[in-house]
Amino acid sequence: MHEELELKGRLAKEASYYLGLLTTQQKNDALWYMSEKLLAHQAEILAANAQDMAQAKEKGMAQSFLDRLLLNEKRLQEMAEGLRQVAALEDPVGHVDEMWLNEDNLQIGKMRVPLGVIGMIYEARPNVTVDAAGLCLKSGNAVLLRGGSDAIHSNKILSKILAAAAEEKGIPRGAIALIEDTSRQCANEMMRLNRYLDVLIPRGGAGLIRTVVENATVPVIETGIGNCHIFVDESADLSMALAILINGKTQRPGVCNATESLLVHEKIADSFLNKVGETLSSLGVELRCDEKSKTYMSSAVLATEEDFATEFHDLILSVKIVSDLSEAVAHINRYGTKHSEVIVTNDYQHAQLFLRAVDAACVYVNASSRFSDGFQFGFGAEIGISTQKLHARGPMGLKELTSYKYIILGQGQVRK
Amino acid sequence: MHEELELKGRLAKEASYYLGLLTTQQKNDALWYMSEKLLAHQAEILAANAQDMAQAKEKGMAQSFLDRLLLNEKRLQEMAEGLRQVAALEDPVGHVDEMWLNEDNLQIGKMRVPLGVIGMIYEARPNVTVDAAGLCLKSGNAVLLRGGSDAIHSNKILSKILAAAAEEKGIPRGAIALIEDTSRQCANEMMRLNRYLDVLIPRGGAGLIRTVVENATVPVIETGIGNCHIFVDESADLSMALAILINGKTQRPGVCNATESLLVHEKIADSFLNKVGETLSSLGVELRCDEKSKTYMSSAVLATEEDFATEFHDLILSVKIVSDLSEAVAHINRYGTKHSEVIVTNDYQHAQLFLRAVDAACVYVNASSRFSDGFQFGFGAEIGISTQKLHARGPMGLKELTSYKYIILGQGQVRK
Repeated sequence: MHEELELKGRLAKEASYYLGLLTTQQKNDALWYMSEKLLAHQAEILAANAQDMAQAKEKGMAQSFLDRLLLNEKRLQEMAEGLRQVAALEDPVGHVDEMWLNEDNLQIGKMRVPLGVIGMIYEARPNVTVDAAGLCLKSGNAVLLRGGSDAIHSNKILSKILAAAAEEKGIPRGAIALIEDTSRQCANEMMRLNRYLDVLIPRGGAGLIRTVVENATVPVIETGIGNCHIFVDESADLSMALAILINGKTQRPGVCNATESLLVHEKIADSFLNKVGETLSSLGVELRCDEKSKTYMSSAVLATEEDFATEFHDLILSVKIVSDLSEAVAHINRYGTKHSEVIVTNDYQHAQLFLRAVDAACVYVNASSRFSDGFQFGFGAEIGISTQKLHARGPMGLKELTSYKYIILGQGQVRK
Repeated sequence: MHEELELKGRLAKEASYYLGLLTTQQKNDALWYMSEKLLAHQAEILAANAQDMAQAKEKGMAQSFLDRLLLNEKRLQEMAEGLRQVAALEDPVGHVDEMWLNEDNLQIGKMRVPLGVIGMIYEARPNVTVDAAGLCLKSGNAVLLRGGSDAIHSNKILSKILAAAAEEKGIPRGAIALIEDTSRQCANEMMRLNRYLDVLIPRGGAGLIRTVVENATVPVIETGIGNCHIFVDESADLSMALAILINGKTQRPGVCNATESLLVHEKIADSFLNKVGETLSSLGVELRCDEKSKTYMSSAVLATEEDFATEFHDLILSVKIVSDLSEAVAHINRYGTKHSEVIVTNDYQHAQLFLRAVDAACVYVNASSRFSDGFQFGFGAEIGISTQKLHARGPMGLKELTSYKYIILGQGQVRK
C-alpha cells in the first residue's frame, strides 16, 4: 500500500461527502480567495517554477516542452483570472433535470451530483494544477492531482497555496491534494485506487493516455488525441475550404483539435490541390500524399499507411484523394480518433449524411476543427476533450464533472 | 489474437456504422420478426435448454442457479413479448437534446448516437441473451454476447435465431453475435478488445463484476451489486417502516435491490426492534445484529464487520443501532455499494439531508428499495443497474445505451 496515496485518497474521499453539500456561495468564496492568494504569492511561485525550468533546460527538453512548463507574471494572472471565471459559472450540483411520478405514485427525480473524487494524471503543465483544482471544487469534487515530475516544484507551491486558501474558507481538508511522489510506480498504483477514486482523467500525449487506459481499474475518461480530418467535397466552396484548412492546420498545430489530414473529392482534386500545395508549402507545411494527390503537389512526399493514422502535432499534413463521400467517411471512421471531423460542402444531403455517419465527438459542416473547445462551445471552462463515448464526449465543462442520483419520494410504497 | 473475437469484433464494428443510420421502423420490424421467430422455434430452443439443464443438474448446481437457467414455454413467451415491448419504446437515436449558437454564430447541437459496439459478459441466464440483443438493436448498437458456459446450448440457438431474423430484415450482418468460446482466456481477451468494443457491461455476481473491472481496458459499466440499507429514523411511522423492511428483505431476497441491512435510531430501538425480531423470524429471516440491537432480538446472532459489508442475496439481515442520522449516513457511505438506500422518516429536514448526503444511485424516502428497476422507474426496459458514477447511474434503459456527438453547422467560420 502506497502511504501517500492511501492518506490523501482517504482524506479526499471523506472530504468529497461534505463537498457535495456546500452552497454555491461557499465554493465561489473559496475560488475568489484562491485566486487572490495565487497573486499574493507570485514571487514564491515564480521562484519554484524557475527551479523547474532550470532543471528542464539542463535535461535539454524541447522548446515546446519548456513553453508549456513556463510560468510568468502574465500566465499567473491568467490562471488567477481563470479561477474567478469558474466562480462565475453556473453550479451544476443539485439541479434536478427532471422529475416524474411512476405508476405507484412515487415521485422520481434525477439530481445532478458530483462524481466524488477525481484523479488527474497529467504532464509538466502547471496551469493544469490550477485549472483542475478550480473546476473540481466548483463541481463539488475532491481532486488528487498527479502532475509530471518536471513541474514538481511549481505544482507543490501551487497546490499548497490553493489547498490552504480553500481550507481557510471552510472547504474540507484534503479536497485539493497533490500527489508528490512522481514515480511511475505511484502513478500505476493511483490508476488502481478504486476504493478512493471515482474517475481518472489523464491529460497529455498519446503515450500517457495509452498507459492509463491499459493499466487503470478506476473508470477513465480518455482525452485529447486528435487525428482530425477535413473532407473537401465535390461541391465545396474552394476558397472557404482553403481558409478552413489553413486555420485547422497552421493556427496552432500542436493542439489536439488541429487538422492533421486532408481528404479531397477526386472531381475537384485538380483545381483544389494545386492551390493547396503552393499555399501550404509557403506556410511551411510538409505534405505527405497518397500517390494520386502527390502528382498535384510538387513538394510533397509519399505518405505511408502510418502517416494516415498519425496525429502529427506539427506542421505536417497527410493528403488523400477519395472517389466519393462514402470513401471519405470510411477513411475517417478507420483512421480517426473520434475527436473532430470536418466536411466542406454545399450539398445538403452530403452534409446530413456526414453528420450522421462520421463517428466522432464533434462533426463539422463548413467550419474549422479548431472550434472543438469548451470555451468556444460556450461552456465557460474545459477540463479536457473526451474521445471516448462513455459518460462525456468532446469538450468537457463543469456539467461533465458531475453524475446524477435518483431521488425517490414515497408515502410508504412497497413493491407488489 | 483470438480468431473468433477478431472476426466477430470486426464485423460488429462494421455493422455498428450502419446500425446508427437505420430508421426506427427498420429496427422495429426486425424486433417484431425476431420475436416471431423465437416462438416459431420453440421446440428447438427448449431442447437446447434441456441439454444445458441436464448438464447443470449433473454438475450439482444449486436450485437458484437452475431456476435462472431454465427456459419453458411461458418464459419464452415472455422473452418474445419483451422484444415487442422494446419495439414499442421511443427510439433515442438522433434526438438533438439542445442546439445553440456560439459567439461565432456556429450552430452547435448535441445529438444522441449509439455507443457503437457493446460487449455483454454475463452468467448462465439465457434471457439476458434475448434482452440484450433487443435493447442493443433498438438503441442502434451492435452487441457481442458472451454468456456463461452452462447456458451455451441455449445461447447458441437463441443468438442464431435472433441474428438470422435480424439479418433477414436488413439489419447488417454481425450486429448480433454470440462469442461461443466460453473459456476464461477468451473472456479476458474480450475485456481488452478496445479496437472493436466501445463499452463492456458485465452482469452477474460480485466475482464476475470484480474480474471485469480489474482486467478490462475497455470502458466498463459496473452493475448490480446491492448492499442496500434501510434507516428507520426517530420520527418514522413504525408500521410503514416494518412494511417497507419486509418488502425489501423478503419479497425477492436474491436480487440486487433487496434490503440487506437495517439501521435503527436508538430512540426507537426498543419499540421497533422487538416487533421486527418476531416478524422477521417468523418469515424465516436470519438476523445478524450488533451488540446493542442483539439485546432486543432473541433469535439473533452477533454480526461481524464482514456481515455489514455483505450482500447476502438471501433471507439474512444485518442490524445496527445508530445514535443519529449522521451515523446512519456515514455507515451507509462506508459499507454501501452505491445502489439503493432508504430512509423512513417523518422529519422533513432529515429526509432532505439523507437525499443529499447519501452517495448512491437511488436514494429513497419512505419507499421500498425494491423499486430500483428500469420498468418500475418507467423506462420500459432495463439492461442493468449501474453502481458506478461514470456515464449512467442506477437503472439503465435505452437512453443509457447511447452517447452523444456534437454537430456543428457553420458558414466557413475559422478560429481567430
